[in-house]
Amino acid sequence: MRVLGVDPGLTRCGVGVVEGVAGRPLTMRGVGVVRTPPDAELGARLVAVEQGIERWLDEYRPEFVAVERVFSQHNVRTVMGTAQASAVAMLCAARRGIPVALHTPSEVKAAVTGSGRADKAQVGAMVTRLLRLDAPPKPADAADALALAICHIWRAPAQNRLQQAVAAHRTTYASKGRTA
Amino acid sequence: MRVLGVDPGLTRCGVGVVEGVAGRPLTMRGVGVVRTPPDAELGARLVAVEQGIERWLDEYRPEFVAVERVFSQHNVRTVMGTAQASAVAMLCAARRGIPVALHTPSEVKAAVTGSGRADKAQVGAMVTRLLRLDAPPKPADAADALALAICHIWRAPAQNRLQQAVAAHRTTYASKGRTA
Repeated sequence: MRVLGVDPGLTRCGVGVVEGVAGRPLTMRGVGVVRTPPDAELGARLVAVEQGIERWLDEYRPEFVAVERVFSQHNVRTVMGTAQASAVAMLCAARRGIPVALHTPSEVKAAVTGSGRADKAQVGAMVTRLLRLDAPPKPADAADALALAICHIWRAPAQNRLQQAVAAHRTTYASKGRTA
Repeated sequence: MRVLGVDPGLTRCGVGVVEGVAGRPLTMRGVGVVRTPPDAELGARLVAVEQGIERWLDEYRPEFVAVERVFSQHNVRTVMGTAQASAVAMLCAARRGIPVALHTPSEVKAAVTGSGRADKAQVGAMVTRLLRLDAPPKPADAADALALAICHIWRAPAQNRLQQAVAAHRTTYASKGRTA
Protein backbone atom coordinates (compact mmCIF):
# COMPACT_ATOMS: atom_id res chain seq x y z
CA MET A 1 0.00 0.00 0.00
CA ARG A 2 1.09 3.56 -0.76
CA VAL A 3 0.31 6.17 1.89
CA LEU A 4 0.65 9.95 1.87
CA GLY A 5 1.26 11.20 5.40
CA VAL A 6 0.35 14.82 6.15
CA ASP A 7 1.57 16.74 9.19
CA PRO A 8 -0.81 19.68 8.84
CA GLY A 9 0.20 23.29 9.31
CA LEU A 10 -0.34 26.60 7.55
CA THR A 11 3.28 27.79 7.58
CA ARG A 12 4.80 24.35 7.06
CA CYS A 13 2.68 21.35 6.06
CA GLY A 14 4.84 18.21 6.09
CA VAL A 15 4.15 15.60 3.40
CA GLY A 16 5.71 12.18 2.90
CA VAL A 17 4.90 9.14 0.79
CA VAL A 18 5.73 5.65 2.05
CA GLU A 19 5.05 2.34 0.30
CA GLY A 20 4.96 -1.15 1.76
CA VAL A 21 3.06 -3.55 3.98
CA ALA A 22 3.26 -4.32 7.68
CA GLY A 23 6.03 -6.77 8.50
CA ARG A 24 8.13 -5.97 5.41
CA PRO A 25 10.76 -3.24 4.84
CA LEU A 26 9.15 0.07 3.83
CA THR A 27 10.21 2.42 1.06
CA MET A 28 10.10 6.21 0.98
CA ARG A 29 8.76 7.51 -2.34
CA GLY A 30 8.90 11.22 -1.59
CA VAL A 31 9.12 13.78 1.20
CA GLY A 32 8.74 17.53 1.39
CA VAL A 33 6.97 20.52 2.86
CA VAL A 34 4.14 22.67 1.54
CA ARG A 35 4.82 26.21 2.74
CA THR A 36 2.61 29.30 2.75
CA PRO A 37 3.70 32.85 3.62
CA PRO A 38 2.67 33.82 7.19
CA ASP A 39 1.80 37.36 6.10
CA ALA A 40 -0.61 36.29 3.34
CA GLU A 41 -4.40 36.38 3.76
CA LEU A 42 -5.80 33.25 5.42
CA GLY A 43 -7.93 32.38 2.37
CA ALA A 44 -4.91 32.63 0.06
CA ARG A 45 -2.88 30.42 2.41
CA LEU A 46 -5.61 27.75 2.35
CA VAL A 47 -5.64 27.87 -1.46
CA ALA A 48 -1.83 27.43 -1.45
CA VAL A 49 -2.12 24.40 0.86
CA GLU A 50 -4.79 22.95 -1.45
CA GLN A 51 -2.60 23.42 -4.53
CA GLY A 52 0.39 21.87 -2.75
CA ILE A 53 -1.55 18.80 -1.57
CA GLU A 54 -3.12 18.38 -5.03
CA ARG A 55 0.36 18.30 -6.58
CA TRP A 56 1.42 15.53 -4.19
CA LEU A 57 -1.74 13.54 -4.90
CA ASP A 58 -1.25 13.98 -8.66
CA GLU A 59 2.38 12.93 -8.58
CA TYR A 60 2.26 10.00 -6.14
CA ARG A 61 -1.34 8.68 -6.45
CA PRO A 62 -1.50 7.35 -2.87
CA GLU A 63 -4.16 4.76 -1.93
CA PHE A 64 -4.53 6.21 1.57
CA VAL A 65 -3.96 9.58 3.20
CA ALA A 66 -2.98 9.68 6.89
CA VAL A 67 -3.39 13.02 8.65
CA GLU A 68 -2.36 13.97 12.18
CA ARG A 69 -5.40 14.32 14.41
CA VAL A 70 -5.53 17.86 15.79
CA PHE A 71 -6.18 18.51 19.43
CA SER A 72 -6.82 21.79 21.16
CA GLN A 73 -3.44 22.84 22.50
CA HIS A 74 -2.20 25.78 24.53
CA ASN A 75 -1.70 28.11 21.58
CA VAL A 76 -5.18 28.76 20.19
CA ARG A 77 -3.99 30.52 17.04
CA THR A 78 -1.66 27.65 16.13
CA VAL A 79 -4.28 24.98 16.67
CA MET A 80 -6.78 26.84 14.47
CA GLY A 81 -4.29 27.02 11.61
CA THR A 82 -3.49 23.34 12.07
CA ALA A 83 -7.19 22.39 12.06
CA GLN A 84 -7.77 24.47 8.93
CA ALA A 85 -4.78 23.00 7.06
CA SER A 86 -5.85 19.48 8.05
CA ALA A 87 -9.36 20.20 6.75
CA VAL A 88 -7.91 21.15 3.36
CA ALA A 89 -5.79 17.97 3.22
CA MET A 90 -8.78 15.78 4.13
CA LEU A 91 -10.95 17.59 1.60
CA CYS A 92 -8.43 17.04 -1.22
CA ALA A 93 -8.22 13.32 -0.46
CA ALA A 94 -11.95 12.76 0.05
CA ARG A 95 -12.79 14.60 -3.17
CA ARG A 96 -10.78 11.94 -5.02
CA GLY A 97 -12.34 9.09 -3.06
CA ILE A 98 -9.06 8.35 -1.25
CA PRO A 99 -9.71 7.02 2.28
CA VAL A 100 -8.47 9.36 5.03
CA ALA A 101 -7.27 8.13 8.40
CA LEU A 102 -6.45 10.25 11.43
CA HIS A 103 -3.74 9.28 13.90
CA THR A 104 -2.88 11.09 17.11
CA PRO A 105 0.70 12.31 17.71
CA SER A 106 1.15 9.75 20.49
CA GLU A 107 -0.10 6.91 18.26
CA VAL A 108 2.46 7.92 15.65
CA LYS A 109 5.30 8.19 18.16
CA ALA A 110 4.38 4.85 19.73
CA ALA A 111 4.22 3.19 16.31
CA VAL A 112 7.69 4.23 15.17
CA THR A 113 9.61 4.45 18.49
CA GLY A 114 7.68 2.22 20.89
CA SER A 115 6.92 5.21 23.15
CA GLY A 116 4.03 7.67 22.85
CA ARG A 117 6.22 10.30 24.54
CA ALA A 118 9.25 10.11 22.24
CA ASP A 119 10.80 13.43 21.23
CA LYS A 120 11.31 14.83 17.72
CA ALA A 121 14.92 13.59 17.48
CA GLN A 122 13.89 10.03 18.38
CA VAL A 123 11.08 10.04 15.79
CA GLY A 124 13.49 11.42 13.17
CA ALA A 125 16.10 8.76 14.02
CA MET A 126 13.58 5.92 13.72
CA VAL A 127 12.10 7.24 10.47
CA THR A 128 15.67 7.37 9.08
CA ARG A 129 16.32 3.78 10.17
CA LEU A 130 12.96 2.31 9.10
CA LEU A 131 13.15 3.87 5.64
CA ARG A 132 16.93 3.26 5.33
CA LEU A 133 17.71 6.92 4.66
CA ASP A 134 21.15 8.51 4.84
CA ALA A 135 20.03 11.28 7.20
CA PRO A 136 16.87 12.36 9.07
CA PRO A 137 14.51 14.29 6.76
CA LYS A 138 14.42 18.04 7.49
CA PRO A 139 12.46 19.92 8.69
CA ALA A 140 10.85 17.91 11.50
CA ASP A 141 7.42 18.35 9.83
CA ALA A 142 8.66 16.29 6.88
CA ALA A 143 9.93 13.52 9.17
CA ASP A 144 6.61 13.60 11.06
CA ALA A 145 4.70 13.17 7.80
CA LEU A 146 6.73 10.05 7.00
CA ALA A 147 6.14 8.75 10.54
CA LEU A 148 2.39 9.23 10.01
CA ALA A 149 2.51 7.20 6.80
CA ILE A 150 4.51 4.42 8.51
CA CYS A 151 2.08 4.46 11.44
CA HIS A 152 -0.83 4.07 9.04
CA ILE A 153 0.71 1.12 7.22
CA TRP A 154 1.37 -0.66 10.51
CA ARG A 155 -1.94 0.19 12.18
CA ALA A 156 -4.21 -0.16 9.14
CA PRO A 157 -4.97 -3.90 9.52
CA ALA A 158 -6.15 -3.42 13.12
CA GLN A 159 -8.14 -0.29 12.24
CA ASN A 160 -9.84 -2.01 9.32
CA ARG A 161 -10.90 -4.93 11.55
CA LEU A 162 -12.27 -2.45 14.09
CA GLN A 163 -14.21 -0.52 11.44
CA GLN A 164 -15.67 -3.75 10.08
CA ALA A 165 -16.75 -4.77 13.58
CA VAL A 166 -18.37 -1.37 14.18
CA ALA A 167 -20.14 -1.51 10.82
CA ALA A 168 -21.41 -5.04 11.55
CA HIS A 169 -22.62 -3.96 15.00
CA ARG A 170 -24.49 -0.99 13.51
CA THR A 171 -26.16 -3.07 10.84
CA THR A 172 -27.24 -5.65 13.39
CA TYR A 173 -28.51 -3.37 16.12
CA ALA A 174 -29.22 -0.19 14.14
CA SER A 175 -27.68 1.70 17.04
CA LYS A 176 -27.05 5.43 16.82
CA GLY A 177 -23.33 5.46 17.61
CA ARG A 178 -21.41 8.67 17.05
CA THR A 179 -18.24 8.72 15.01
CA ALA A 180 -15.49 11.32 14.92
CA MET B 1 -22.46 45.29 -2.26
CA ARG B 2 -23.60 41.69 -2.10
CA VAL B 3 -22.28 39.60 0.81
CA LEU B 4 -22.53 35.89 1.59
CA GLY B 5 -22.44 35.36 5.34
CA VAL B 6 -21.33 31.94 6.58
CA ASP B 7 -21.90 30.66 10.11
CA PRO B 8 -19.57 27.67 9.87
CA GLY B 9 -20.41 24.22 11.21
CA LEU B 10 -20.14 20.63 10.06
CA THR B 11 -23.65 19.53 11.00
CA ARG B 12 -25.33 22.84 10.12
CA CYS B 13 -23.51 25.55 8.19
CA GLY B 14 -25.68 28.67 8.04
CA VAL B 15 -25.58 30.69 4.80
CA GLY B 16 -27.27 33.99 3.97
CA VAL B 17 -26.94 36.55 1.21
CA VAL B 18 -27.58 40.24 1.90
CA GLU B 19 -27.33 43.13 -0.54
CA GLY B 20 -27.03 46.85 0.16
CA VAL B 21 -24.79 49.58 1.46
CA ALA B 22 -24.29 51.06 4.92
CA GLY B 23 -26.89 53.67 5.77
CA ARG B 24 -29.54 52.32 3.35
CA PRO B 25 -32.17 49.59 3.84
CA LEU B 26 -30.71 46.12 3.20
CA THR B 27 -32.25 43.29 1.17
CA MET B 28 -32.06 39.55 1.80
CA ARG B 29 -31.36 37.61 -1.40
CA GLY B 30 -31.28 34.13 0.06
CA VAL B 31 -30.90 32.16 3.29
CA GLY B 32 -30.42 28.50 4.12
CA VAL B 33 -28.33 25.82 5.77
CA VAL B 34 -25.76 23.41 4.36
CA ARG B 35 -26.14 20.17 6.33
CA THR B 36 -23.91 17.10 6.52
CA PRO B 37 -24.75 13.81 8.26
CA PRO B 38 -23.03 13.54 11.68
CA ASP B 39 -22.33 9.83 11.16
CA ALA B 40 -20.50 10.31 7.83
CA GLU B 41 -16.70 10.24 7.53
CA LEU B 42 -15.07 13.61 8.25
CA GLY B 43 -13.58 13.82 4.74
CA ALA B 44 -16.97 13.20 3.14
CA ARG B 45 -18.55 15.87 5.36
CA LEU B 46 -15.95 18.43 4.28
CA VAL B 47 -16.65 17.56 0.62
CA ALA B 48 -20.39 18.07 1.28
CA VAL B 49 -19.72 21.48 2.86
CA GLU B 50 -17.58 22.42 -0.15
CA GLN B 51 -20.30 21.39 -2.62
CA GLY B 52 -22.91 23.31 -0.63
CA ILE B 53 -20.85 26.52 -0.46
CA GLU B 54 -19.98 26.23 -4.16
CA ARG B 55 -23.69 26.06 -5.01
CA TRP B 56 -24.34 29.25 -3.04
CA LEU B 57 -21.41 31.04 -4.70
CA ASP B 58 -22.59 29.88 -8.14
CA GLU B 59 -26.16 30.99 -7.57
CA TYR B 60 -25.63 34.33 -5.81
CA ARG B 61 -22.19 35.49 -7.04
CA PRO B 62 -21.38 37.50 -3.87
CA GLU B 63 -18.65 40.18 -3.99
CA PHE B 64 -17.60 39.42 -0.41
CA VAL B 65 -17.77 36.44 1.91
CA ALA B 66 -18.03 37.05 5.67
CA VAL B 67 -17.21 34.11 7.93
CA GLU B 68 -17.53 33.89 11.69
CA ARG B 69 -14.11 33.92 13.32
CA VAL B 70 -13.67 30.72 15.31
CA PHE B 71 -12.32 30.76 18.84
CA SER B 72 -11.30 27.86 21.02
CA GLN B 73 -14.35 27.18 23.13
CA HIS B 74 -15.16 24.72 25.88
CA ASN B 75 -16.14 21.87 23.57
CA VAL B 76 -12.96 20.89 21.72
CA ARG B 77 -14.70 18.56 19.27
CA THR B 78 -17.23 21.24 18.27
CA VAL B 79 -14.58 23.93 17.77
CA MET B 80 -12.50 21.63 15.55
CA GLY B 81 -15.50 20.94 13.29
CA THR B 82 -16.26 24.65 13.18
CA ALA B 83 -12.65 25.52 12.28
CA GLN B 84 -12.63 22.86 9.56
CA ALA B 85 -15.95 23.98 8.05
CA SER B 86 -14.79 27.61 8.13
CA ALA B 87 -11.57 26.60 6.33
CA VAL B 88 -13.62 25.04 3.53
CA ALA B 89 -15.81 28.16 3.20
CA MET B 90 -12.73 30.45 3.09
CA LEU B 91 -11.04 28.15 0.57
CA CYS B 92 -14.06 28.18 -1.77
CA ALA B 93 -14.20 31.99 -1.70
CA ALA B 94 -10.44 32.58 -2.03
CA ARG B 95 -10.21 30.13 -4.94
CA ARG B 96 -12.60 32.43 -6.84
CA GLY B 97 -10.74 35.55 -5.80
CA ILE B 98 -13.62 36.70 -3.58
CA PRO B 99 -12.34 38.67 -0.56
CA VAL B 100 -12.99 36.92 2.76
CA ALA B 101 -13.56 38.79 6.01
CA LEU B 102 -13.74 37.31 9.49
CA HIS B 103 -15.94 38.79 12.20
CA THR B 104 -16.14 37.64 15.81
CA PRO B 105 -19.51 36.62 17.30
CA SER B 106 -19.47 39.68 19.57
CA GLU B 107 -18.73 42.02 16.64
CA VAL B 108 -21.72 40.56 14.80
CA LYS B 109 -24.03 40.84 17.82
CA ALA B 110 -22.90 44.39 18.50
CA ALA B 111 -23.41 45.37 14.86
CA VAL B 112 -27.02 44.18 14.64
CA THR B 113 -28.27 44.64 18.23
CA GLY B 114 -25.96 47.26 19.74
CA SER B 115 -24.73 44.76 22.36
CA GLY B 116 -21.90 42.24 22.00
CA ARG B 117 -23.66 40.02 24.54
CA ALA B 118 -27.09 39.81 22.88
CA ASP B 119 -28.74 36.38 22.83
CA LYS B 120 -29.88 34.35 19.81
CA ALA B 121 -33.48 35.58 20.03
CA GLN B 122 -32.38 39.22 20.02
CA VAL B 123 -30.13 38.66 17.00
CA GLY B 124 -32.97 36.84 15.20
CA ALA B 125 -35.40 39.67 16.00
CA MET B 126 -33.06 42.36 14.69
CA VAL B 127 -32.20 40.40 11.52
CA THR B 128 -35.95 40.07 10.89
CA ARG B 129 -36.46 43.80 11.37
CA LEU B 130 -33.40 44.99 9.42
CA LEU B 131 -34.21 42.79 6.43
CA ARG B 132 -37.98 43.41 6.74
CA LEU B 133 -38.82 39.70 6.93
CA ASP B 134 -42.13 38.22 8.07
CA ALA B 135 -40.51 35.95 10.68
CA PRO B 136 -37.04 35.18 12.08
CA PRO B 137 -35.12 32.81 9.77
CA LYS B 138 -34.82 29.28 11.16
CA PRO B 139 -32.62 27.62 12.32
CA ALA B 140 -30.54 30.11 14.33
CA ASP B 141 -27.48 29.31 12.16
CA ALA B 142 -29.31 30.77 9.15
CA ALA B 143 -30.17 33.96 11.06
CA ASP B 144 -26.56 34.20 12.27
CA ALA B 145 -25.30 33.95 8.68
CA LEU B 146 -27.52 36.90 7.70
CA ALA B 147 -26.31 38.83 10.75
CA LEU B 148 -22.71 38.21 9.61
CA ALA B 149 -23.48 39.57 6.15
CA ILE B 150 -25.18 42.66 7.65
CA CYS B 151 -22.24 43.16 10.02
CA HIS B 152 -19.85 43.03 7.08
CA ILE B 153 -21.77 45.60 5.05
CA TRP B 154 -21.84 47.98 8.01
CA ARG B 155 -18.24 47.42 9.14
CA ALA B 156 -16.62 47.18 5.71
CA PRO B 157 -15.93 50.91 5.22
CA ALA B 158 -14.07 51.13 8.55
CA GLN B 159 -12.20 47.86 7.89
CA ASN B 160 -11.16 48.99 4.44
CA ARG B 161 -9.81 52.27 5.83
CA LEU B 162 -7.88 50.32 8.46
CA GLN B 163 -6.42 47.92 5.87
CA GLN B 164 -5.40 50.84 3.68
CA ALA B 165 -3.70 52.53 6.65
CA VAL B 166 -1.84 49.30 7.51
CA ALA B 167 -0.78 48.83 3.89
CA ALA B 168 0.43 52.44 3.69
CA HIS B 169 2.35 52.05 6.95
CA ARG B 170 4.04 48.89 5.66
CA THR B 171 5.01 50.45 2.38
CA THR B 172 6.43 53.49 4.13
CA TYR B 173 8.35 51.81 6.91
CA ALA B 174 8.82 48.30 5.47
CA SER B 175 7.92 46.99 8.92
CA LYS B 176 7.45 43.28 9.50
CA GLY B 177 3.93 43.38 10.97
CA ARG B 178 2.12 40.10 11.44
CA THR B 179 -1.42 39.61 10.18
CA ALA B 180 -3.95 37.00 11.23
